[in-house]
Amino acid sequence: MLERTHQCGKITKADIGQTVVLNGWVQRRRDLGGVLFIDLRDRSGIVQIVFNPEFNEEAHAIADRVRNEYVLAVRGTVVERDPETVNPNLETGEIEVRVEEIEVLNPAKTPPFFIEDGIEIDEAIRLKYRYLDLRRPEMLNTLMLRSKAAKIFRDFLDERGFLEIETPILTKSTPEGARDYLVPSRVHPGEFFALPQSPQIFKQLLMVGGIERYYQIARCFRDEDLRADRQPEFTQVDIEVSFMNQDQLLEMMEELICRVFRETIGVEIERPFQRITYEEAIGKYGSDKPDLRFGMELVDLTDLAANCGVKVFASVAQKGGQVKAINAKGCGTWSRKEIDDLLPFAERYGAKGLAWIQVKDGEMRGPIVKFFTEEELAELKTRMNAEDGDLILFSADTKKVVADVLGNLRLKIGRDLGLIDDNVYKFAWVVDFPLLSYDEEEKRYVAEHHPFTRPRDEDIHYFDEDPSKIRAQAYDLVLNGYEVGGGSMRIYKREIQEKMFKALGFTMEEAYDKFGFLLDAFEYGTPPHGGIAFGFDRLVMLLAGRKNLRDTIAFPKTANATDLLCDAPSEVSDKQLEELSIRVALRPPASK
Amino acid sequence: MLERTHQCGKITKADIGQTVVLNGWVQRRRDLGGVLFIDLRDRSGIVQIVFNPEFNEEAHAIADRVRNEYVLAVRGTVVERDPETVNPNLETGEIEVRVEEIEVLNPAKTPPFFIEDGIEIDEAIRLKYRYLDLRRPEMLNTLMLRSKAAKIFRDFLDERGFLEIETPILTKSTPEGARDYLVPSRVHPGEFFALPQSPQIFKQLLMVGGIERYYQIARCFRDEDLRADRQPEFTQVDIEVSFMNQDQLLEMMEELICRVFRETIGVEIERPFQRITYEEAIGKYGSDKPDLRFGMELVDLTDLAANCGVKVFASVAQKGGQVKAINAKGCGTWSRKEIDDLLPFAERYGAKGLAWIQVKDGEMRGPIVKFFTEEELAELKTRMNAEDGDLILFSADTKKVVADVLGNLRLKIGRDLGLIDDNVYKFAWVVDFPLLSYDEEEKRYVAEHHPFTRPRDEDIHYFDEDPSKIRAQAYDLVLNGYEVGGGSMRIYKREIQEKMFKALGFTMEEAYDKFGFLLDAFEYGTPPHGGIAFGFDRLVMLLAGRKNLRDTIAFPKTANATDLLCDAPSEVSDKQLEELSIRVALRPPASK
Repeated sequence: MLERTHQCGKITKADIGQTVVLNGWVQRRRDLGGVLFIDLRDRSGIVQIVFNPEFNEEAHAIADRVRNEYVLAVRGTVVERDPETVNPNLETGEIEVRVEEIEVLNPAKTPPFFIEDGIEIDEAIRLKYRYLDLRRPEMLNTLMLRSKAAKIFRDFLDERGFLEIETPILTKSTPEGARDYLVPSRVHPGEFFALPQSPQIFKQLLMVGGIERYYQIARCFRDEDLRADRQPEFTQVDIEVSFMNQDQLLEMMEELICRVFRETIGVEIERPFQRITYEEAIGKYGSDKPDLRFGMELVDLTDLAANCGVKVFASVAQKGGQVKAINAKGCGTWSRKEIDDLLPFAERYGAKGLAWIQVKDGEMRGPIVKFFTEEELAELKTRMNAEDGDLILFSADTKKVVADVLGNLRLKIGRDLGLIDDNVYKFAWVVDFPLLSYDEEEKRYVAEHHPFTRPRDEDIHYFDEDPSKIRAQAYDLVLNGYEVGGGSMRIYKREIQEKMFKALGFTMEEAYDKFGFLLDAFEYGTPPHGGIAFGFDRLVMLLAGRKNLRDTIAFPKTANATDLLCDAPSEVSDKQLEELSIRVALRPPASK
Repeated sequence: MLERTHQCGKITKADIGQTVVLNGWVQRRRDLGGVLFIDLRDRSGIVQIVFNPEFNEEAHAIADRVRNEYVLAVRGTVVERDPETVNPNLETGEIEVRVEEIEVLNPAKTPPFFIEDGIEIDEAIRLKYRYLDLRRPEMLNTLMLRSKAAKIFRDFLDERGFLEIETPILTKSTPEGARDYLVPSRVHPGEFFALPQSPQIFKQLLMVGGIERYYQIARCFRDEDLRADRQPEFTQVDIEVSFMNQDQLLEMMEELICRVFRETIGVEIERPFQRITYEEAIGKYGSDKPDLRFGMELVDLTDLAANCGVKVFASVAQKGGQVKAINAKGCGTWSRKEIDDLLPFAERYGAKGLAWIQVKDGEMRGPIVKFFTEEELAELKTRMNAEDGDLILFSADTKKVVADVLGNLRLKIGRDLGLIDDNVYKFAWVVDFPLLSYDEEEKRYVAEHHPFTRPRDEDIHYFDEDPSKIRAQAYDLVLNGYEVGGGSMRIYKREIQEKMFKALGFTMEEAYDKFGFLLDAFEYGTPPHGGIAFGFDRLVMLLAGRKNLRDTIAFPKTANATDLLCDAPSEVSDKQLEELSIRVALRPPASK
């Protein structure tokens, strides 16, 4: 075999006159009057190679039988192109390689789609032929970026004394959280391992173990019904530290994230990141992962609405609900139909209707205007900062529904109006999440994050007064409307842990039943600790400017949790099941 | 909380006079005439802190209640120790810290074992309290070494353009190989994922996908009955390249391994590594993973034995078996009983007896001596390089049994005689493995490595003549008697693959049934490729000088595939099983 000397995409004018050996795939091939021009592609890029019977008759004859995606080895001389044939779109566009020797390393069938960017093709085909899909530059570049991002995470953490430690994949089913993937044990019939939803327990145990700084780029598993942005197995950058407080950790993590963005896509992110409380995020943006690239903040009108003539507003306000609105700047000229078209969208988030006011020619217009007094309208206009050409959209409901409806309308209208700049990266820490929320079904408080999340010191007295008021030392990192990371400081003092379990309605005995070995561990000198996990797939998606998590994963699964390439899951032999002491027990179709 | 300013183990004389804040665990505590001396430990090491009522009465009173493994934060001043109290065994032995303020961050129960190296304690206890075990310096150091080794692997490969790419954990059950761990699919009732035994198929698909250089520190799974040096989940450094030949790959891998050894334990390994063919390894050392730190090579005496008077030797030699021997230097003085004690060991490897000759006072002695002629004895002495004080041990059997018996005797005696230097690292590549071996049960050839292993070009004609003669482009890296890595160049030409399947007794249709999507992929322009995988757990074990794979893994499983810390596997709820459409089907105890 001809031994490669150069990469296709890296040959420059400096190589002119040199003999090079290239290996790669045929991107395309043209015959111009008996001279063959082939674009040869390898991982580094493309170079034009030329076969002319005058250079070498045999090589030309062989090249004549070559088709797209054939794998070639060629030896030739780098020459300058004629000025009129220079290709400014190609890194190597100023040169070409005159081939004197060719070896066809392998032929190729015609692929089911072209190996090029921006193809419009059913994703199922791309996934089935993933090995061809990965040859496309946009996929290759995403994988290269992913590899580079992982390297930067590791380098940064390594420099700061974090140890990379692997935690088990075959572990124990957890009583709380999402649905586990199970693995039957052959050695212990009737027993099962579970795949970890996260290394949470192990990373806390590592802190008890004196590791002080741990990280892992860890595979995690959740057997949930998949949405577009979920995968049954996903990757997180998992981090835990001892003897640091929340501010110290967040500061270090900002530095980390900034380095990842700088060194992958060359974007400088300003520090410190904005910090916004959970209350403020929900209040202003209707979301705990606000997209901060544009305004259109939610404005609270509950006090104003409490006594107004719009009955539904007044009634909601008086019953402890909220009345809020957003100002869709420039939509004051929308037709009634255009506004009504928003209703089905709003209903998806729980809206029962969608009240609105347009400002046109200095006047407030719309069906509900007549129920307001002049003074109320003036106050409304001021508060909403409403001008000619604006559209005010209202929501009156529970706090949660108002946030969902207006939060999502804000995003939709922001996108539709082009208010969102794809080249801007707006990070924020959302902090002060509530520690507990009251579960109406279970009639008890449940942990918002998990039962080991540390409350803020100054809120501990609320355990006895009103647990719903306790703020947690928990934080999410949000970027452009996505949650890209989250974590918390953990409880390390027994008396706080006891208060927490009591608030959750567990006796210490019940708590031991559920979390036995972790609570045991905590008895032997647990340091103050806390951590964070970044969603690596999603971060790569945002770095690469892709719209789909699957594009960031070499071999992803479909929304149906299927691997179309290797056809998994699949049936297995009876012998395998018997060895595992299990049997398939299909439910009748009706109960599915 | 007092904010840490320094790490315990890193305070030096240069810090004298400084105020420092330390966080850590109480290693031990002594009260000398009312002055308390505490060894405070964190990840970096130990420093002595001193509480004297004269420095601070309150701090002294608090410290008086402190016990081993309490977690402390202290503020104090670094002072030089009196010359007579300097501790030369401690990095920080020249200084101590006079404490002015102390905070007990957490108390601790008395741990079930001391936090110190070299403890003699049931491993089950260490595994159950792994979080305490990890605090012991030898465990912490092993995890630090593991983290560092991973970093060096990654840095080296990254520098050479390898992309780190994650492959699926939830994948398809493979028809060949070891037993799979299975994962029932909830979405596809009656179907199962399998956990990967290695990323083999995916890394080859990545080469088809044009990645050219791939690596991953990958978790792999095998549901085998465990031996001391096996874990159900283990880690390999998985590597695959395109457009390189075997020599180029092995050279690069040598450089990689040398760097790992240099930068972790400061050992310089000589390059190039010795290369030894499979035939030679079996012939000289009775093993395809020879320990090359000492000689005692196997000597072939089959020709000599064929006509000798020892009937069993002559008969074996005439029937195509082998007669070989090793020379245990210096064991010529062993008693009959000492020699006989080797028999049960030899029998474990298939020996039916153990013939021997001792050389004493210039004379050959032993029960079989009389069956040899003077000339034969002289020839034997020459070939065995036998001198006074030597013991020659014979094996006469099939090639395989002879290799097993003498290979293992060689190792045992080498160890017993102290011939093996623990500080020497003898690497070798074992190359030219046979491509195929004949399976007497299945009455067909089976692949020694896997069905995609590339044969040596010059052996391809043997497909038609004698497939057993074909040598593979397959290689193992051995170190001190352990296989620490292995791989092969892969078949990429269809006509060779067809010959291979034919030799294995498959039609192309049967082959497609078994390996469908990979063969499909190979049709679309597959580059020449090959790869290797290093056993990361084992490499770390050898680097750390540990005897047990479990000591290299933060949370390992027992030989019984159990996690004693979190009690996995365990029973799960009926609801979970129902959702997965499976049922436990315990076999009656008798059939277990």
